[in-house]
Amino acid sequence: MSTTTSMSSRGTDRRGAILEAAAVEFDERGFGAASIAGIAKTAEVSQGALHFHFRTKQAIALGVIDEQNARTFAAVTFDDASPLGGLVQASRTIAGLLLDDPVVRAGIRLSLENRVFSGATSAFYDQWVASVVDVFRLAVAAGEVDTTISAEALGATVVPWFTGVQLVSDVRAARADLLPAVGTMWRVLAHACVVPAHRDRLLAVVDRTFACPTA
Amino acid sequence: MSTTTSMSSRGTDRRGAILEAAAVEFDERGFGAASIAGIAKTAEVSQGALHFHFRTKQAIALGVIDEQNARTFAAVTFDDASPLGGLVQASRTIAGLLLDDPVVRAGIRLSLENRVFSGATSAFYDQWVASVVDVFRLAVAAGEVDTTISAEALGATVVPWFTGVQLVSDVRAARADLLPAVGTMWRVLAHACVVPAHRDRLLAVVDRTFACPTA
Repeated sequence: MSTTTSMSSRGTDRRGAILEAAAVEFDERGFGAASIAGIAKTAEVSQGALHFHFRTKQAIALGVIDEQNARTFAAVTFDDASPLGGLVQASRTIAGLLLDDPVVRAGIRLSLENRVFSGATSAFYDQWVASVVDVFRLAVAAGEVDTTISAEALGATVVPWFTGVQLVSDVRAARADLLPAVGTMWRVLAHACVVPAHRDRLLAVVDRTFACPTA
Repeated sequence: MSTTTSMSSRGTDRRGAILEAAAVEFDERGFGAASIAGIAKTAEVSQGALHFHFRTKQAIALGVIDEQNARTFAAVTFDDASPLGGLVQASRTIAGLLLDDPVVRAGIRLSLENRVFSGATSAFYDQWVASVVDVFRLAVAAGEVDTTISAEALGATVVPWFTGVQLVSDVRAARADLLPAVGTMWRVLAHACVVPAHRDRLLAVVDRTFACPTA
Protein backbone atom coordinates (compact mmCIF):
# COMPACT_ATOMS: atom_id res chain seq x y z
CA MET A 1 0.00 0.00 0.00
CA SER A 2 2.76 2.39 0.89
CA THR A 3 4.39 1.67 -2.50
CA THR A 4 1.15 2.56 -4.31
CA THR A 5 0.77 5.78 -2.36
CA SER A 6 4.37 6.68 -3.00
CA MET A 7 4.09 6.04 -6.75
CA SER A 8 0.86 7.98 -6.97
CA SER A 9 2.42 10.83 -5.06
CA ARG A 10 5.47 10.75 -7.30
CA GLY A 11 3.18 10.80 -10.35
CA THR A 12 1.42 13.89 -9.06
CA ASP A 13 4.72 15.57 -8.29
CA ARG A 14 6.03 14.71 -11.75
CA ARG A 15 2.87 16.03 -13.43
CA GLY A 16 3.21 19.22 -11.37
CA ALA A 17 6.90 19.55 -12.27
CA ILE A 18 6.03 19.20 -15.98
CA LEU A 19 3.36 21.91 -15.69
CA GLU A 20 5.77 24.26 -13.88
CA ALA A 21 8.48 23.67 -16.50
CA ALA A 22 6.01 24.08 -19.36
CA ALA A 23 4.74 27.34 -17.81
CA VAL A 24 8.27 28.77 -17.79
CA GLU A 25 8.75 27.72 -21.43
CA PHE A 26 5.36 29.09 -22.56
CA ASP A 27 5.78 32.32 -20.59
CA GLU A 28 9.24 33.01 -22.01
CA ARG A 29 8.90 31.67 -25.57
CA GLY A 30 5.18 31.53 -26.34
CA PHE A 31 3.20 28.42 -27.21
CA GLY A 32 4.43 28.18 -30.81
CA ALA A 33 8.15 28.32 -29.98
CA ALA A 34 8.04 26.11 -26.87
CA SER A 35 9.05 22.49 -27.52
CA ILE A 36 8.17 19.19 -25.86
CA ALA A 37 11.91 18.41 -25.68
CA GLY A 38 12.65 21.72 -23.95
CA ILE A 39 9.83 21.20 -21.46
CA ALA A 40 11.01 17.65 -20.65
CA LYS A 41 14.58 18.91 -20.17
CA THR A 42 13.53 21.76 -17.86
CA ALA A 43 11.26 19.40 -15.89
CA GLU A 44 14.11 16.86 -15.68
CA VAL A 45 11.89 14.04 -16.95
CA SER A 46 12.26 11.85 -20.02
CA GLN A 47 10.09 12.60 -23.05
CA GLY A 48 8.49 9.18 -22.41
CA ALA A 49 7.49 10.22 -18.88
CA LEU A 50 6.16 13.50 -20.21
CA HIS A 51 4.15 11.66 -22.85
CA PHE A 52 2.66 9.44 -20.13
CA HIS A 53 1.11 12.52 -18.50
CA PHE A 54 0.40 14.64 -21.60
CA ARG A 55 -0.12 13.36 -25.13
CA THR A 56 0.48 16.69 -26.89
CA LYS A 57 1.89 20.18 -26.34
CA GLN A 58 -1.72 21.39 -26.52
CA ALA A 59 -2.68 19.05 -23.65
CA ILE A 60 0.17 20.50 -21.55
CA ALA A 61 -1.04 24.03 -22.32
CA LEU A 62 -4.60 23.12 -21.29
CA GLY A 63 -3.14 21.69 -18.06
CA VAL A 64 -1.38 25.01 -17.40
CA ILE A 65 -4.59 26.96 -18.10
CA ASP A 66 -6.56 24.69 -15.72
CA GLU A 67 -3.93 25.10 -13.02
CA GLN A 68 -3.95 28.89 -13.49
CA ASN A 69 -7.74 28.86 -13.09
CA ALA A 70 -7.47 26.82 -9.90
CA ARG A 71 -4.78 29.05 -8.38
CA THR A 72 -6.52 32.34 -9.20
CA PHE A 73 -9.97 31.13 -8.14
CA ALA A 74 -8.45 30.02 -4.83
CA ALA A 75 -7.64 33.70 -4.20
CA VAL A 76 -11.33 34.63 -4.09
CA THR A 77 -12.75 34.52 -0.58
CA PHE A 78 -16.19 35.80 0.27
CA ASP A 79 -16.14 38.45 2.99
CA ASP A 80 -19.70 38.86 4.27
CA ALA A 81 -18.95 42.09 6.13
CA SER A 82 -17.36 43.74 3.09
CA PRO A 83 -17.86 41.73 -0.11
CA LEU A 84 -16.29 44.42 -2.30
CA GLY A 85 -13.37 44.79 0.12
CA GLY A 86 -12.84 41.03 -0.19
CA LEU A 87 -12.79 41.31 -3.98
CA VAL A 88 -10.20 44.09 -3.79
CA GLN A 89 -8.01 41.79 -1.67
CA ALA A 90 -8.53 38.91 -4.11
CA SER A 91 -7.44 41.10 -7.02
CA ARG A 92 -4.27 41.97 -5.09
CA THR A 93 -3.53 38.28 -4.54
CA ILE A 94 -4.07 37.54 -8.24
CA ALA A 95 -1.90 40.51 -9.24
CA GLY A 96 0.81 39.06 -7.00
CA LEU A 97 0.49 35.69 -8.77
CA LEU A 98 0.76 37.46 -12.15
CA LEU A 99 4.00 39.04 -10.94
CA ASP A 100 5.53 35.92 -9.36
CA ASP A 101 3.94 32.63 -10.46
CA PRO A 102 4.99 31.30 -13.90
CA VAL A 103 1.93 29.01 -14.08
CA VAL A 104 -0.46 31.96 -13.66
CA ARG A 105 1.56 34.18 -16.02
CA ALA A 106 1.69 31.49 -18.70
CA GLY A 107 -1.93 30.41 -18.19
CA ILE A 108 -3.33 33.88 -18.80
CA ARG A 109 -1.03 34.40 -21.76
CA LEU A 110 -2.02 31.08 -23.36
CA SER A 111 -5.70 31.65 -22.72
CA LEU A 112 -5.68 35.03 -24.45
CA GLU A 113 -3.31 34.40 -27.35
CA ASN A 114 -4.44 31.13 -28.81
CA ARG A 115 -7.87 30.54 -30.31
CA VAL A 116 -7.19 26.84 -30.08
CA PHE A 117 -7.84 27.25 -26.32
CA SER A 118 -10.88 29.49 -26.68
CA GLY A 119 -13.30 26.77 -25.51
CA ALA A 120 -11.52 26.42 -22.17
CA THR A 121 -10.92 30.17 -21.97
CA SER A 122 -14.52 31.09 -22.69
CA ALA A 123 -15.81 28.82 -19.92
CA PHE A 124 -13.16 30.28 -17.61
CA TYR A 125 -14.34 33.85 -18.24
CA ASP A 126 -18.02 32.85 -17.88
CA GLN A 127 -17.14 31.37 -14.48
CA TRP A 128 -15.22 34.51 -13.44
CA VAL A 129 -18.00 36.85 -14.51
CA ALA A 130 -20.62 34.77 -12.65
CA SER A 131 -18.49 34.75 -9.48
CA VAL A 132 -17.77 38.49 -9.57
CA VAL A 133 -21.46 39.21 -10.24
CA ASP A 134 -22.21 37.18 -7.08
CA VAL A 135 -19.78 39.34 -5.11
CA PHE A 136 -21.50 42.51 -6.35
CA ARG A 137 -24.91 41.05 -5.40
CA LEU A 138 -23.56 40.39 -1.90
CA ALA A 139 -22.12 43.92 -1.83
CA VAL A 140 -25.56 45.33 -2.71
CA ALA A 141 -27.12 43.19 0.03
CA ALA A 142 -24.48 44.40 2.50
CA GLY A 143 -25.27 48.02 1.62
CA GLU A 144 -21.82 48.72 0.12
CA VAL A 145 -22.88 49.13 -3.51
CA ASP A 146 -25.88 50.99 -4.91
CA THR A 147 -28.09 49.65 -7.69
CA THR A 148 -27.82 52.51 -10.18
CA ILE A 149 -25.73 50.11 -12.27
CA SER A 150 -26.80 46.47 -11.87
CA ALA A 151 -24.58 43.89 -10.16
CA GLU A 152 -24.67 41.96 -13.46
CA ALA A 153 -23.29 44.90 -15.44
CA LEU A 154 -20.65 45.67 -12.78
CA GLY A 155 -19.42 42.06 -12.70
CA ALA A 156 -19.47 41.85 -16.50
CA THR A 157 -17.20 44.89 -16.83
CA VAL A 158 -14.82 44.36 -13.89
CA VAL A 159 -13.54 41.03 -15.26
CA PRO A 160 -12.50 42.38 -18.69
CA TRP A 161 -11.28 45.58 -17.04
CA PHE A 162 -8.83 43.64 -14.84
CA THR A 163 -7.90 41.48 -17.85
CA GLY A 164 -7.07 44.55 -19.94
CA VAL A 165 -5.23 46.30 -17.09
CA GLN A 166 -2.87 43.36 -16.56
CA LEU A 167 -2.41 42.83 -20.30
CA VAL A 168 -1.63 46.46 -21.15
CA SER A 169 0.62 46.67 -18.07
CA ASP A 170 2.45 43.60 -19.42
CA VAL A 171 2.81 45.08 -22.92
CA ARG A 172 3.81 48.58 -21.78
CA ALA A 173 5.87 47.89 -18.68
CA ALA A 174 6.40 44.14 -18.19
CA ARG A 175 3.83 44.60 -15.36
CA ALA A 176 6.06 47.03 -13.40
CA ASP A 177 3.01 49.31 -12.92
CA LEU A 178 0.49 46.51 -12.34
CA LEU A 179 -0.30 47.27 -8.68
CA PRO A 180 -0.99 51.01 -9.07
CA ALA A 181 -2.93 50.28 -12.30
CA VAL A 182 -5.23 47.83 -10.49
CA GLY A 183 -5.57 50.39 -7.67
CA THR A 184 -6.76 53.00 -10.21
CA MET A 185 -9.36 50.54 -11.51
CA TRP A 186 -10.81 50.12 -8.02
CA ARG A 187 -10.78 53.86 -7.30
CA VAL A 188 -12.79 54.56 -10.46
CA LEU A 189 -15.18 51.73 -9.63
CA ALA A 190 -15.61 52.93 -6.04
CA HIS A 191 -16.63 56.39 -7.26
CA ALA A 192 -19.08 54.80 -9.72
CA CYS A 193 -20.99 52.45 -7.46
CA VAL A 194 -20.02 52.46 -3.76
CA VAL A 195 -22.56 54.21 -1.52
CA PRO A 196 -21.23 57.41 0.13
CA ALA A 197 -21.34 55.90 3.65
CA HIS A 198 -18.86 53.18 2.62
CA ARG A 199 -16.80 54.99 -0.01
CA ASP A 200 -14.01 56.45 2.16
CA ARG A 201 -13.53 53.12 3.94
CA LEU A 202 -13.26 51.24 0.63
CA LEU A 203 -10.96 53.85 -0.90
CA ALA A 204 -8.72 53.45 2.17
CA VAL A 205 -8.72 49.66 1.62
CA VAL A 206 -7.70 50.23 -2.01
CA ASP A 207 -4.94 52.68 -1.05
CA ARG A 208 -3.62 50.34 1.64
CA THR A 209 -3.80 47.28 -0.60
CA PHE A 210 -2.14 48.77 -3.69
CA ALA A 211 0.13 51.41 -2.18
CA CYS A 212 3.70 51.04 -3.37
CA PRO A 213 6.36 52.24 -0.92
CA THR A 214 8.17 54.14 -3.68
CA ALA A 215 5.07 55.58 -5.40
CA MET B 1 4.95 61.23 -65.69
CA SER B 2 1.59 59.55 -65.95
CA THR B 3 3.33 56.17 -66.17
CA THR B 4 5.27 56.89 -62.97
CA THR B 5 2.10 57.95 -61.18
CA SER B 6 0.28 54.89 -62.37
CA MET B 7 3.07 52.53 -61.30
CA SER B 8 3.38 54.21 -57.94
CA SER B 9 -0.37 53.98 -57.47
CA ARG B 10 -0.34 50.32 -58.50
CA GLY B 11 2.47 49.70 -56.01
CA THR B 12 0.42 51.27 -53.22
CA ASP B 13 -2.64 49.28 -54.26
CA ARG B 14 -0.63 46.08 -54.30
CA ARG B 15 0.89 46.78 -50.88
CA GLY B 16 -2.61 47.49 -49.56
CA ALA B 17 -3.97 44.30 -51.14
CA ILE B 18 -1.19 42.29 -49.48
CA LEU B 19 -1.99 43.83 -46.08
CA GLU B 20 -5.72 43.12 -46.50
CA ALA B 21 -5.02 39.51 -47.51
CA ALA B 22 -2.52 39.04 -44.69
CA ALA B 23 -5.03 40.44 -42.21
CA VAL B 24 -7.62 37.86 -43.24
CA GLU B 25 -5.01 35.08 -42.91
CA PHE B 26 -3.74 36.32 -39.51
CA ASP B 27 -7.27 36.90 -38.19
CA GLU B 28 -8.47 33.44 -39.18
CA ARG B 29 -5.35 31.34 -38.61
CA GLY B 30 -3.12 33.32 -36.24
CA PHE B 31 0.40 34.52 -36.97
CA GLY B 32 2.10 31.16 -36.52
CA ALA B 33 -0.18 29.23 -38.90
CA ALA B 34 -0.43 31.91 -41.60
CA SER B 35 1.93 31.36 -44.54
CA ILE B 36 3.61 33.72 -47.02
CA ALA B 37 2.33 31.47 -49.83
CA GLY B 38 -1.25 31.65 -48.54
CA ILE B 39 -1.08 35.44 -48.21
CA ALA B 40 0.32 35.82 -51.74
CA LYS B 41 -2.42 33.56 -53.12
CA THR B 42 -5.22 35.44 -51.34
CA ALA B 43 -3.75 38.80 -52.44
CA GLU B 44 -3.44 37.48 -56.01
CA VAL B 45 0.19 38.51 -56.25
CA SER B 46 3.34 36.44 -56.89
CA GLN B 47 5.56 35.58 -53.93
CA GLY B 48 8.22 37.70 -55.69
CA ALA B 49 5.91 40.73 -55.70
CA LEU B 50 5.07 40.11 -52.05
CA HIS B 51 8.77 39.87 -51.21
CA PHE B 52 9.36 43.22 -52.95
CA HIS B 53 7.01 44.90 -50.43
CA PHE B 54 7.70 42.79 -47.33
CA ARG B 55 10.86 40.81 -46.63
CA THR B 56 9.37 38.57 -43.91
CA LYS B 57 6.06 37.44 -42.45
CA GLN B 58 6.98 39.53 -39.40
CA ALA B 59 7.32 42.63 -41.60
CA ILE B 60 3.83 41.99 -43.03
CA ALA B 61 2.44 41.66 -39.49
CA LEU B 62 4.08 44.95 -38.46
CA GLY B 63 2.50 46.53 -41.55
CA VAL B 64 -0.93 45.24 -40.46
CA ILE B 65 -0.37 46.59 -36.91
CA ASP B 66 0.67 50.01 -38.29
CA GLU B 67 -2.38 50.12 -40.56
CA GLN B 68 -4.66 49.15 -37.65
CA ASN B 69 -3.15 52.01 -35.60
CA ALA B 70 -3.75 54.47 -38.43
CA ARG B 71 -7.37 53.37 -38.97
CA THR B 72 -8.31 53.40 -35.28
CA PHE B 73 -6.56 56.69 -34.54
CA ALA B 74 -8.43 58.24 -37.48
CA ALA B 75 -11.65 57.53 -35.54
CA VAL B 76 -10.65 59.94 -32.76
CA THR B 77 -11.98 63.44 -33.35
CA PHE B 78 -11.79 66.17 -30.75
CA ASP B 79 -15.18 67.63 -29.89
CA ASP B 80 -14.59 70.91 -28.00
CA ALA B 81 -18.19 71.19 -26.81
CA SER B 82 -18.25 67.65 -25.41
CA PRO B 83 -14.80 66.02 -25.36
CA LEU B 84 -16.05 62.93 -23.51
CA GLY B 85 -19.04 62.64 -25.88
CA GLY B 86 -16.56 62.70 -28.76
CA LEU B 87 -14.57 59.89 -27.15
CA VAL B 88 -17.74 57.81 -26.72
CA GLN B 89 -18.41 58.25 -30.46
CA ALA B 90 -14.81 57.33 -31.31
CA SER B 91 -15.08 54.13 -29.27
CA ARG B 92 -18.24 53.22 -31.22
CA THR B 93 -16.41 53.74 -34.52
CA ILE B 94 -13.50 51.58 -33.32
CA ALA B 95 -15.91 48.89 -32.08
CA GLY B 96 -17.46 48.92 -35.56
CA LEU B 97 -14.02 48.43 -37.11
CA LEU B 98 -13.37 45.51 -34.72
CA LEU B 99 -16.60 43.93 -35.94
CA ASP B 100 -16.12 44.57 -39.66
CA ASP B 101 -12.54 45.39 -40.68
CA PRO B 102 -10.11 42.44 -40.96
CA VAL B 103 -7.08 44.75 -40.75
CA VAL B 104 -8.22 46.17 -37.41
CA ARG B 105 -9.25 42.73 -36.10
CA ALA B 106 -5.94 41.17 -37.11
CA GLY B 107 -3.86 44.16 -35.97
CA ILE B 108 -5.22 44.08 -32.42
CA ARG B 109 -4.89 40.30 -32.27
CA LEU B 110 -1.26 40.37 -33.47
CA SER B 111 -0.35 43.22 -31.16
CA LEU B 112 -1.64 41.40 -28.09
CA GLU B 113 -0.61 37.82 -28.81
CA ASN B 114 2.97 38.08 -29.96
CA ARG B 115 5.78 39.42 -27.81
CA VAL B 116 7.84 39.75 -30.94
CA PHE B 117 5.67 42.80 -31.71
CA SER B 118 5.74 44.23 -28.20
CA GLY B 119 8.00 47.15 -29.18
CA ALA B 120 5.48 48.43 -31.74
CA THR B 121 2.56 47.55 -29.46
CA SER B 122 4.00 49.29 -26.42
CA ALA B 123 4.50 52.54 -28.37
CA PHE B 124 0.96 52.16 -29.72
CA TYR B 125 -0.53 51.91 -26.21
CA ASP B 126 1.61 54.81 -24.94
CA GLN B 127 0.21 56.92 -27.79
CA TRP B 128 -3.37 55.86 -27.04
CA VAL B 129 -3.06 56.58 -23.33
CA ALA B 130 -1.53 60.03 -24.03
CA SER B 131 -4.35 60.86 -26.47
CA VAL B 132 -7.14 59.70 -24.16
CA VAL B 133 -5.56 61.58 -21.23
CA ASP B 134 -5.69 64.69 -23.45
CA VAL B 135 -9.41 64.11 -24.07
CA PHE B 136 -10.04 63.84 -20.32
CA ARG B 137 -8.05 67.08 -19.75
CA LEU B 138 -10.27 68.80 -22.33
CA ALA B 139 -13.35 67.29 -20.65
CA VAL B 140 -12.22 68.72 -17.30
CA ALA B 141 -11.65 72.13 -18.97
CA ALA B 142 -15.12 71.91 -20.59
CA GLY B 143 -16.68 71.20 -17.18
CA GLU B 144 -17.85 67.67 -18.11
CA VAL B 145 -15.53 65.71 -15.83
CA ASP B 146 -14.61 66.42 -12.22
CA THR B 147 -11.09 66.15 -10.84
CA THR B 148 -11.67 63.69 -8.00
CA ILE B 149 -9.78 61.18 -10.15
CA SER B 150 -7.08 62.79 -12.29
CA ALA B 151 -7.34 62.97 -16.09
CA GLU B 152 -4.08 60.98 -16.18
CA ALA B 153 -5.55 58.14 -14.11
CA LEU B 154 -8.82 58.13 -16.11
CA GLY B 155 -6.98 57.96 -19.45
CA ALA B 156 -4.60 55.29 -18.14
CA THR B 157 -7.49 53.01 -17.14
CA VAL B 158 -9.93 53.62 -20.03
CA VAL B 159 -7.46 52.33 -22.66
CA PRO B 160 -6.85 48.92 -20.98
CA TRP B 161 -10.54 48.76 -20.01
CA PHE B 162 -11.62 49.01 -23.67
CA THR B 163 -8.83 46.58 -24.62
CA GLY B 164 -10.06 44.02 -22.11
CA VAL B 165 -13.73 44.52 -23.01
CA GLN B 166 -13.13 43.82 -26.70
CA LEU B 167 -10.81 40.90 -25.92
CA VAL B 168 -13.11 39.16 -23.45
CA SER B 169 -16.07 39.80 -25.77
CA ASP B 170 -14.04 38.12 -28.55
CA VAL B 171 -13.16 35.12 -26.35
CA ARG B 172 -16.65 34.68 -24.86
CA ALA B 173 -18.93 35.62 -27.72
CA ALA B 174 -16.92 36.25 -30.93
CA ARG B 175 -17.70 39.94 -30.17
CA ALA B 176 -21.50 39.45 -30.45
CA ASP B 177 -21.93 41.47 -27.22
CA LEU B 178 -19.24 44.05 -27.98
CA LEU B 179 -21.51 47.09 -28.36
CA PRO B 180 -23.50 46.66 -25.11
CA ALA B 181 -20.26 45.76 -23.29
CA VAL B 182 -18.61 49.02 -24.40
CA GLY B 183 -21.82 50.84 -23.43
CA THR B 184 -21.57 49.39 -19.90
CA MET B 185 -17.97 50.60 -19.66
CA TRP B 186 -19.05 54.18 -20.42
CA ARG B 187 -22.01 54.04 -18.03
CA VAL B 188 -19.72 53.00 -15.16
CA LEU B 189 -17.21 55.68 -16.12
CA ALA B 190 -19.92 58.37 -16.37
CA HIS B 191 -21.08 57.59 -12.83
CA ALA B 192 -17.47 57.74 -11.60
CA CYS B 193 -16.33 61.06 -13.05
CA VAL B 194 -18.94 63.06 -15.01
CA VAL B 195 -20.26 66.09 -13.12
CA PRO B 196 -23.98 65.84 -12.23
CA ALA B 197 -24.98 68.70 -14.58
CA HIS B 198 -23.66 66.74 -17.58
CA ARG B 199 -24.30 63.15 -16.48
CA ASP B 200 -27.80 62.60 -17.88
CA ARG B 201 -26.82 64.11 -21.23
CA LEU B 202 -23.74 61.86 -21.48
CA LEU B 203 -25.65 58.76 -20.36
CA ALA B 204 -28.18 59.53 -23.13
CA VAL B 205 -25.31 59.77 -25.64
CA VAL B 206 -24.04 56.37 -24.44
CA ASP B 207 -27.50 54.80 -24.67
CA ARG B 208 -28.11 56.23 -28.14
CA THR B 209 -24.63 55.26 -29.38
CA PHE B 210 -24.62 51.68 -28.11
CA ALA B 211 -28.29 50.76 -28.17
CA CYS B 212 -28.89 47.59 -30.13
CA PRO B 213 -32.29 47.33 -31.87
CA THR B 214 -32.71 43.76 -30.68
CA ALA B 215 -31.35 44.29 -27.14
